[in-house]
Amino acid sequence: MILNDMASEFILKLEERFLAQKLVCVGLDSDIAKLPEAVKAEYSSPEEALFVFNRSIIEATADLVSAFKLNAAFYEAEGEAGYRALKRTAGYLKEQYPEIPVIFDAKRADIGNTNEAYARAIFDDLLMDAVTVHPYLGKEALAPFLARKDKGIFVLVRTSNPGAGEFQDLVVDGLPLYQKVARNVAEGWNGNGNCGVVVGATYPEELKAVREIVGNMPILVPGIGAQGGDIAKTVSAGKGKSSFGLVINSSRGIIYASQGADYADAARKATEALSDFIHTALLTA
Amino acid sequence: MILNDMASEFILKLEERFLAQKLVCVGLDSDIAKLPEAVKAEYSSPEEALFVFNRSIIEATADLVSAFKLNAAFYEAEGEAGYRALKRTAGYLKEQYPEIPVIFDAKRADIGNTNEAYARAIFDDLLMDAVTVHPYLGKEALAPFLARKDKGIFVLVRTSNPGAGEFQDLVVDGLPLYQKVARNVAEGWNGNGNCGVVVGATYPEELKAVREIVGNMPILVPGIGAQGGDIAKTVSAGKGKSSFGLVINSSRGIIYASQGADYADAARKATEALSDFIHTALLTA
Repeated sequence: MILNDMASEFILKLEERFLAQKLVCVGLDSDIAKLPEAVKAEYSSPEEALFVFNRSIIEATADLVSAFKLNAAFYEAEGEAGYRALKRTAGYLKEQYPEIPVIFDAKRADIGNTNEAYARAIFDDLLMDAVTVHPYLGKEALAPFLARKDKGIFVLVRTSNPGAGEFQDLVVDGLPLYQKVARNVAEGWNGNGNCGVVVGATYPEELKAVREIVGNMPILVPGIGAQGGDIAKTVSAGKGKSSFGLVINSSRGIIYASQGADYADAARKATEALSDFIHTALLTA
Repeated sequence: MILNDMASEFILKLEERFLAQKLVCVGLDSDIAKLPEAVKAEYSSPEEALFVFNRSIIEATADLVSAFKLNAAFYEAEGEAGYRALKRTAGYLKEQYPEIPVIFDAKRADIGNTNEAYARAIFDDLLMDAVTVHPYLGKEALAPFLARKDKGIFVLVRTSNPGAGEFQDLVVDGLPLYQKVARNVAEGWNGNGNCGVVVGATYPEELKAVREIVGNMPILVPGIGAQGGDIAKTVSAGKGKSSFGLVINSSRGIIYASQGADYADAARKATEALSDFIHTALLTA
């Protein structure tokens, strides 16, 4: 039932969640300006407000999730306080929920020498289980990430934004660039069984094409909810053959489900609702 | 003499440096493990060691440089202390040398909603003058960066790493992808006169092709020194028509020129030497 014979610790952890029917990834894109008034009123320190908000969402949803995804940008926007909130959240997850994989959505990628420093920062300092990376510099530059056998490396293939096609749809070697990227990752980058790809829920046809290329590799799917992706189409197009294989992420639709003091309950209800939608979609997929 | 009629404040600042014959960009890729023993012995706090090292290099080279470039990864690798050293360095530069442009080499890019947070972090919190970005998500996603008329946005076109060609050389619309990216940036992304591109010194022929496409747009050129790029070829291939137009960066070759207590003097000498090489190359370019 494992995703492949030499899957990384991260992939195995993710697979355990799929087997337990935990199929929603909750995205902690926690933006200080959008936190519920109740949190902002009680915690005037940005670090404390962000951490307490995250902890409440995590406690309310942990038994339902396939993974948590932390988006680097929203923490970086708060400077030092944001960094501390990010690190405390990752540390709290590692301590309280070691069985739940944590994805750092940082979309990094530089030359090898620099990626070594990023890999240290992300895996050894922040203790993340997986990271998202840009493909533009190629496999050789990403070696310091790909060498981490215990971790997960999600390569951007087809992003969820409206303008994704500007380069990703250009035809190379007879197929669109995003499919070429998916093919290279599946055929040449995954020697350590630790790769995944990212495909936006806003592009179900492209998701289907990528699933055919990458076999049972996990696909991280942002774009459900606020960005308009359709759940039934996503599940039907992207489901793996021997496992669920989809890390379907919702961020704003879950964490900002209520602006009241009931925000954590509301986040749980939104996660349950998305989970039900996915399970229903699976019955007909 | 300005690079274009509606150049951003960043581009104008850079142009002033070129006019004054300041042609070397010093890259503060300050890695705590590689700092001179003298610094590590005197400052046991990573924040203090990184900041003091940077300040010494800056003081020793400021009158020679076109710009300073700060590489995000090496600061992120030190967590909170690294963040503070980064912010203190940028703040020190802004206060002491407001005339010198500061480029944040962070290679960011996400969907629009997330890029807004990155732009806040980079321009409003860290006070950087320019940033490097990945092109893969297209112009639409990068709007929060491109909208910043006062700043500089350097788009990765041809990176300096040996494996850069894996995707960048693939042929689309009859030309290599890196040239297509350069063309889109030059023709469609530069409405605010704030774009530049990145081309590695390790690829002089590609640099020449990109210069033909982007006209007088500034080109950030990493890859001199440790990575093996040739100065004469770089200047000859990449020089702009109405201005120098090249932000030739050296990091390791300058900041680690000596492991002794004389590291700042050595950095100055290495900057002078590179500056002389560039000026000599200009005479025959």
